[in-house]
Amino acid sequence: MPSYTPPVKDMQFILHNVLNITGQETPGYSDLEADFTSAILEEAGKLTSEVLAPLNVVGDTEGCKLENGVVRTPSGFKAAFDQVREGGWPGLDMPEQYGGQDMPYVIGTAVGEMFSSANMAFTMYQGLTHGAASAILAHGTDAQKDMYLPKMVSCVWTGTMNLTEPHCGTDLGLMRTRAEPQEDGSYKLTGQKIFISAGEHDMADNIIHLVLAKISGAPEGIKGVSLFIVPKFIVKEDGALGERNPVAVGKIEEKMGIHGNSTCVMNYDGATGYLLGEEHKGMRAMFTMMNEARLGVGMQGLSQAEVAYQNALDYARDRLQGRDVTGAKNPEGPADPLIVHPDIRRSLMDQKSFAEAGRAFILWGSTLIDAAHRGQDKDADGLVSLLTPVIKGFLTDQGYDMTIKAQQVYGGHGYIEEWGMSQFTRDARIAMIYEGANGVQALDLVGRKLAQDGGKHVMAFFDLVKGFIKENAGQDADFDREFLDPLKAASKDLQAAGMYFMQNGMKNPNNALSGSYDFMHMFGHVCLGLMWAMMGKAARDALADGAADKEFYETKLATGRYYMARQLPGTALHLARIQSGADTVMALDAANF
Amino acid sequence: MPSYTPPVKDMQFILHNVLNITGQETPGYSDLEADFTSAILEEAGKLTSEVLAPLNVVGDTEGCKLENGVVRTPSGFKAAFDQVREGGWPGLDMPEQYGGQDMPYVIGTAVGEMFSSANMAFTMYQGLTHGAASAILAHGTDAQKDMYLPKMVSCVWTGTMNLTEPHCGTDLGLMRTRAEPQEDGSYKLTGQKIFISAGEHDMADNIIHLVLAKISGAPEGIKGVSLFIVPKFIVKEDGALGERNPVAVGKIEEKMGIHGNSTCVMNYDGATGYLLGEEHKGMRAMFTMMNEARLGVGMQGLSQAEVAYQNALDYARDRLQGRDVTGAKNPEGPADPLIVHPDIRRSLMDQKSFAEAGRAFILWGSTLIDAAHRGQDKDADGLVSLLTPVIKGFLTDQGYDMTIKAQQVYGGHGYIEEWGMSQFTRDARIAMIYEGANGVQALDLVGRKLAQDGGKHVMAFFDLVKGFIKENAGQDADFDREFLDPLKAASKDLQAAGMYFMQNGMKNPNNALSGSYDFMHMFGHVCLGLMWAMMGKAARDALADGAADKEFYETKLATGRYYMARQLPGTALHLARIQSGADTVMALDAANF
Repeated sequence: MPSYTPPVKDMQFILHNVLNITGQETPGYSDLEADFTSAILEEAGKLTSEVLAPLNVVGDTEGCKLENGVVRTPSGFKAAFDQVREGGWPGLDMPEQYGGQDMPYVIGTAVGEMFSSANMAFTMYQGLTHGAASAILAHGTDAQKDMYLPKMVSCVWTGTMNLTEPHCGTDLGLMRTRAEPQEDGSYKLTGQKIFISAGEHDMADNIIHLVLAKISGAPEGIKGVSLFIVPKFIVKEDGALGERNPVAVGKIEEKMGIHGNSTCVMNYDGATGYLLGEEHKGMRAMFTMMNEARLGVGMQGLSQAEVAYQNALDYARDRLQGRDVTGAKNPEGPADPLIVHPDIRRSLMDQKSFAEAGRAFILWGSTLIDAAHRGQDKDADGLVSLLTPVIKGFLTDQGYDMTIKAQQVYGGHGYIEEWGMSQFTRDARIAMIYEGANGVQALDLVGRKLAQDGGKHVMAFFDLVKGFIKENAGQDADFDREFLDPLKAASKDLQAAGMYFMQNGMKNPNNALSGSYDFMHMFGHVCLGLMWAMMGKAARDALADGAADKEFYETKLATGRYYMARQLPGTALHLARIQSGADTVMALDAANF
Repeated sequence: MPSYTPPVKDMQFILHNVLNITGQETPGYSDLEADFTSAILEEAGKLTSEVLAPLNVVGDTEGCKLENGVVRTPSGFKAAFDQVREGGWPGLDMPEQYGGQDMPYVIGTAVGEMFSSANMAFTMYQGLTHGAASAILAHGTDAQKDMYLPKMVSCVWTGTMNLTEPHCGTDLGLMRTRAEPQEDGSYKLTGQKIFISAGEHDMADNIIHLVLAKISGAPEGIKGVSLFIVPKFIVKEDGALGERNPVAVGKIEEKMGIHGNSTCVMNYDGATGYLLGEEHKGMRAMFTMMNEARLGVGMQGLSQAEVAYQNALDYARDRLQGRDVTGAKNPEGPADPLIVHPDIRRSLMDQKSFAEAGRAFILWGSTLIDAAHRGQDKDADGLVSLLTPVIKGFLTDQGYDMTIKAQQVYGGHGYIEEWGMSQFTRDARIAMIYEGANGVQALDLVGRKLAQDGGKHVMAFFDLVKGFIKENAGQDADFDREFLDPLKAASKDLQAAGMYFMQNGMKNPNNALSGSYDFMHMFGHVCLGLMWAMMGKAARDALADGAADKEFYETKLATGRYYMARQLPGTALHLARIQSGADTVMALDAANF
């Protein structure tokens, strides 16, 4: 059975040495001393590694079962969920007013990575609840907040998000679910929603569904969509649970992975709903949550890469097979461990250098969300809005690839379910699809975010990279050559791609859209290159300060050098593809494929 | 449910327009006129699309069940296997002497791709039998051949290959299964083998296991391994089945995919075995089959990419979602089909351009095997031996990636098992692992094959590429620019990588081995680039000759242009990684990862 070791030390390095969070101006940050964050991370680490991780394979094997309209979660989930509630984890970054602990989002993200690495399917029950609660927090009336949030922040009730229908996923303008206004101001919702994560289960007293639907007579398309609160049990004024709303699970989907989470077809049959936010502005209400939700999915990609890497590393150290070509490393044993072989190391270094920089990228993005929300920093808001599709698309694509590499280290055993490596890949696979498929992320990035506010945010990003290089160049020739020069080259490639879009996208938007996916990936590489440069600098500083754990910082530098030498040059290939334009992509008639 | 359409026309194009098989000097090729191969392919296409493809999801869903020592295959498998036998398909390329049809291997490969696309798990029962029969054909005594081959060629009996043990996969020198010589010249085998595909099932009267084991007192390590025939039921001199041999299935593994094939733990408990080939030369006997077996696995990777692509294409044409940014293509409908979107096209073109060139690569490799075996052509033997790890490693890695891309086209539906796209990825995943994990293929390529016979075969490959370019350059400026120039550049990258290995691998073999995986992939791209150049030329020739189906050949050229512009430049990235050397790969102590 696979195991999970929370990367507390690595998180502390990023939070304190690299991002220097205690020194940030964002409200609520000044308390985040290393001792304090360490205590939180250690505690979360214990819960996730001891309670949640052992249930991961159980969830995969047993799955969720629909019996007479009731969904049974896998053995042990309910008890574990109680423990999570008791620890107050679901409300970590929620307002105290509603029972939360009011911690910054960045701390929620760090803890969330642990939860997700340990048991992604399990963690989704609270993740969806967090998303639904955030939407109510941002758009609900005071009465709605008072009625739903205390129970949702504590996960006594859970939440869901209902967007997709059988014939519409990305294109929500095609939506058919209807909402009929009632005399008392409520609505009756009728329609079918699919792919509803945590749609029904046996771990909470009530489930608060957030449902997109069209009010009768609403404008056509996406502009006629509204958002509704549809509780499984109607909540009475005194907070007690009333009658059962006619919303029922139609079936549980048989999926490739995340079997521990119940993915439901939900049928609304005249169910009572309450408008959340304004009429016809449902998409806007949804989209205010989008940056967080998408960052959370990017984090899922990273989380599976991390735990898969940990297990691949253990296996590579233990499994004896073949000999080091440069001389036996385990001469007393029948063979050397796998980790002596250069190609196994290549794979492990790919995984390690991705996971560590990916973590830094997400934590950095989380500090931007905090700055935007808590500090009202418009620039931070614009920057994280630009980076969100990169975090989601790049980290889930790469995260998935890393789980495949980790599985490959196991050879044939990787293909056998009992070793658990297959589950990491199957679970990670969904993160490339939901919350906007990665092709849609690329479209969002190139078609919308690049030009947002006159291109101000992408310019700010380039300035940030340039500023970092300028500030740190010329002090250490090795650091310049190993870290700053590759970052500069990659950033130049990215700028050249942006330039290509500007010059050729006007003539024909397909010239930009044909390169959108490559652009998202090259942007991701530049971001991870920037993270490695920042981590490299922090490690050098720590070593110069005579830090105790020399090996930790030297390993950081070595891992960064690997990424810079082996991964970052990938930007040139993406640029070449982008500059080849749309002609070869669009050449064929649909009939001739 | 997914469907499968055999690519008969495309195969005919490759066999006749590109490889010109009827014009080859290889014995048995002159009969292969287009009408004749067309009849075979059409017939195989009917069987695979109508009988085998509908059983693919059944096999995945039901899996194989072990009940009281008996393995039950999924519903419908037995009846379908009877139909396959009746059609004589298993013996297509086997000698007439033993009931086969004596067709070239290349025809077997083309038919095999269809079988594998339609139902990979099912096809493995006959695939393993083919491999075992080939080993007996190459190394058996006349008595052994007469006893086993007629029944195996017809698949009345099936076969298996038993190599792996729990503690040894790649490193077979660690093997523990023992063979005790008996007075009658037979042996008693004792030990446990794992991952035995088709190890036990209910579709054949007898199963002929080929088992690697060490004869007591044999030399240590890999040089003490011998190969044995161990029938499930002992075969009497008159061919009748005798007593049950003490070889039993211990359990069926729960795997990520290929559920329709029974992957067994096999326990040999003093089972009677007969030496196949010479004592202690078991690895050599196995390795004579290796090129074919590995090419067959490469073909599996391609086969899943092909069928997944076909379904993704259908979905992209049918599913209405969003609008073409350059203007509605389906203005009467609620939305345009997915295929209008540039990023969907990028994905489909990646898949299409891979599948068509991958097919050409495998069929070309198969003609080399035919030339080597039937024509005793030593150069062909050397060349295919060099290309085999590329065919296996590159086509299974890329084939798998393509199934992931195909699945992605489906959005959320791709993750739901009933749509069948998950199965293609899960089935394809094993091909990167078995028959030598792809890292081992890369090691074989760089550590052994490059330098084989003084580097003669890799030089022959480069000469072949150069020869093709020289012969075809200067006739059409577009063709030169679109096809020949990119091929030349990629081939130059590959040569530069080889040069780097020569210059730096001497000093430190890790400089070569750290780049082996990248080298395998860049070699694969050059091969597919060569295939596209050859196909482009054949398409141009057909158009110049006024071929009837103009669109078919123009589509070929357009697809080739895509590959040349978007995929082939990948060689530069691989070269950059290779030239970064071993330092960053090998920097960390095992303890510091």
